[in-house]
Amino acid sequence: MMDLWFAEEWSKDTKFSIKVKKHLYTENTGLQQIDFFESGEYGRFFTLDGCIMLTEKDEFIYHEMITHVPLAVNPEIKNVLIIGAGDGGTLRELTRYKSIEKIDMVEIDRRVVELCKEYLPSVASKFDDSRLNLYFEDGVKFVEESQEKYDLIVVDSTDPILVGEGLFTENFYRNCYKILSDSGILVNQHESPFYEKFSKEMKKAHDKLKKIFPIATVYQIHQPTYSSGHWMLGFASKGLNPVIDHKTEKWKKFELVTKYYNSNIHKGAFALPNYVIELLNK
Amino acid sequence: MMDLWFAEEWSKDTKFSIKVKKHLYTENTGLQQIDFFESGEYGRFFTLDGCIMLTEKDEFIYHEMITHVPLAVNPEIKNVLIIGAGDGGTLRELTRYKSIEKIDMVEIDRRVVELCKEYLPSVASKFDDSRLNLYFEDGVKFVEESQEKYDLIVVDSTDPILVGEGLFTENFYRNCYKILSDSGILVNQHESPFYEKFSKEMKKAHDKLKKIFPIATVYQIHQPTYSSGHWMLGFASKGLNPVIDHKTEKWKKFELVTKYYNSNIHKGAFALPNYVIELLNK
Repeated sequence: MMDLWFAEEWSKDTKFSIKVKKHLYTENTGLQQIDFFESGEYGRFFTLDGCIMLTEKDEFIYHEMITHVPLAVNPEIKNVLIIGAGDGGTLRELTRYKSIEKIDMVEIDRRVVELCKEYLPSVASKFDDSRLNLYFEDGVKFVEESQEKYDLIVVDSTDPILVGEGLFTENFYRNCYKILSDSGILVNQHESPFYEKFSKEMKKAHDKLKKIFPIATVYQIHQPTYSSGHWMLGFASKGLNPVIDHKTEKWKKFELVTKYYNSNIHKGAFALPNYVIELLNK
Repeated sequence: MMDLWFAEEWSKDTKFSIKVKKHLYTENTGLQQIDFFESGEYGRFFTLDGCIMLTEKDEFIYHEMITHVPLAVNPEIKNVLIIGAGDGGTLRELTRYKSIEKIDMVEIDRRVVELCKEYLPSVASKFDDSRLNLYFEDGVKFVEESQEKYDLIVVDSTDPILVGEGLFTENFYRNCYKILSDSGILVNQHESPFYEKFSKEMKKAHDKLKKIFPIATVYQIHQPTYSSGHWMLGFASKGLNPVIDHKTEKWKKFELVTKYYNSNIHKGAFALPNYVIELLNK
């Protein structure tokens, strides 16, 4: 029987490998290489330029934590901008809020959306939501030119070493600030503290966000299929503090069933280990 | 140049691999297979029966969290029993408390201690502490026969599928309860919630501890070299609650410098994701 393994280099001396049943599809979209795999334990998973973006087994962790945290800090969020997130997982979680009125989503690579609809229907399940305006263009350019005011911007991007590079620049963050309302929140994919390749990027992103936003911090998730399993999301805002302004009771009124997120882990996720705090403050 | 990788099966479909510079030493002790490796990024690491016990890069996380959490719940701990932990990391952290008067340590395999002293001197650094009584015998038998009263028992064992099996039985936990003082705390290595092989054992250990201890809960750490990176420690006690009875100010008076542990992460570590709570309560 064929013994096929997908392997990802988590650091120069570390490999993480998943046993693959079938390599379902591969394509170079012109922007990036996209691959879909069928596995036993993880169900389906897909990669961009050889990096795991999500697996069916653990995508709920990342997608719940990148969406419910800001919604529990400001349950009045009405107008949302999503950058990246072509797989649809972030959109799926956000559409669960009936109170959200409008979702603009900007994905640079149309093929990611099209292929995730085909190969990952449980994740790319809400592209038909009537509140959605989907733009296939560069998020960097979109925020530069937008005249809108958003209550929430979710930057759900690849790593800065891949197509996501422009989404980790000071200029991009400044434009996000500009188009956020006074109670606006920016949440972003913020790399990882453990291996140097990622911790350098985490630190750089944080330094830039701190210059622009009065509140800029990170919170952590246990994401087993991302490098080291210790992954960070960024929380930046014009004034709302993710712990002090956390609205437990109001969030509970949404009556959403979640598999990872709850009000305790909301607070707990912002409690960082000393070595991470030192790295960020250095 | 030689391309040598150590690989561990984290689940039936998952492998975690570390690039090895040199396989330093191998021995079958009669109880288990022990191996020491030199790597670039992780420094030295060692395995028992092919499972990573610790790496120099991330051992501080596990060892700080298995010791400072109970000491911050009961800073009056004087009399400690360590079961397992032959590498000396748990002992190293506990000897930092001048207030601890006596440490009994029971390691079944003398060779683990001897070899860790030789190959991991930064971890096995406190075996000469005058408060230590080191016994090379079976921890299961030791707690059965002990007439002592301990304020803290730390069970720092391998997995129940290895030599550590007896340290996951109801009978063992019952004997631990018996030799704990009224304010006694049991902390133990408690497996992981993500992959079934480990989550089954986590659940079983929790069910047994719940039967015996009025307080029995788990807390989580980000341990990148353990399966899934999402690892659990157990906290069981005769009455002290790890969050409500957490003594932040008293612990700060110890003036210990830590790289992972702090008072926020103490509380945060007990905030579990919904899927873990459901698994434990099922």
